Amino acid sequence: MFEYSDEYFMRAALQEAQKGFNEDEVPVGAVVVLNSKIIARGHNEVEKLNDPTAHAEMIALTSAFNYLGSKYLPEATLFVTIEPCLMCCGALYWSKIGRIVYGANDEKNGGLRFFSLRNGTWPFHPKTELTKGLLREECAQLLKNFFKAKR
Amino acid sequence: MFEYSDEYFMRAALQEAQKGFNEDEVPVGAVVVLNSKIIARGHNEVEKLNDPTAHAEMIALTSAFNYLGSKYLPEATLFVTIEPCLMCCGALYWSKIGRIVYGANDEKNGGLRFFSLRNGTWPFHPKTELTKGLLREECAQLLKNFFKAKR
Repeated sequence: MFEYSDEYFMRAALQEAQKGFNEDEVPVGAVVVLNSKIIARGHNEVEKLNDPTAHAEMIALTSAFNYLGSKYLPEATLFVTIEPCLMCCGALYWSKIGRIVYGANDEKNGGLRFFSLRNGTWPFHPKTELTKGLLREECAQLLKNFFKAKR
Repeated sequence: MFEYSDEYFMRAALQEAQKGFNEDEVPVGAVVVLNSKIIARGHNEVEKLNDPTAHAEMIALTSAFNYLGSKYLPEATLFVTIEPCLMCCGALYWSKIGRIVYGANDEKNGGLRFFSLRNGTWPFHPKTELTKGLLREECAQLLKNFFKAKR
């Protein structure tokens, strides 16, 4: 029997990121998964919407709230190809999402560098689990290809 | 001649907050001002939109980007009745907004407690100016009245 795995869902997030790439957006993609089902998808639409807050995570979260008719996602997992920025960390906090899985670190705009469990500044809901580095090289490579093509 | 002042614009943000109050939303309001003109308004719509990211600041910022056709707001000021949360701090960073003026501190959900100029974790664009505490008592009172009525 086919088993849904974290990798399976991160590849779906990578497909979303590729859509962004094809639309000349910084290629970041996200999916929200509940009970092994993708209930929401998003990719960066900053250029299309002329809105620097239109990140993959924001779009996927808002879509998930709409789909479920719920303000909270405690049983859901967000897969995103790149470390969330500060804004998206804050949005994930409000969502009370159960788990976050991200691919590559974002040295420049990643939000997690501001926080440390050690000094008690965990930005998410206390029950939110975090997994880093899944398919990190593929996730980072798509970004690198994008910025290389831009130069 | 009538002089537009910070207080004038914070009172406009308070009017937005009052709209939220009337709609049974946590009463937080925001306006975006450019050249002494209000170009965008927003109030909390979390309950109406069933979306915990539908904060006054997010709505006002997105409206301002749309109005100006610009992803950045370096000449604009955001007035908001309550200290922005982490998500809204992140959104304000992306907007490169020129100035932020807020009313009351938010001990529970305010984003600024995570940061300190001293340790170099300023969350906004380096050029963004910040003014705190304008009409703080009126801004806080509206919230207090809201939560008192809820109990």
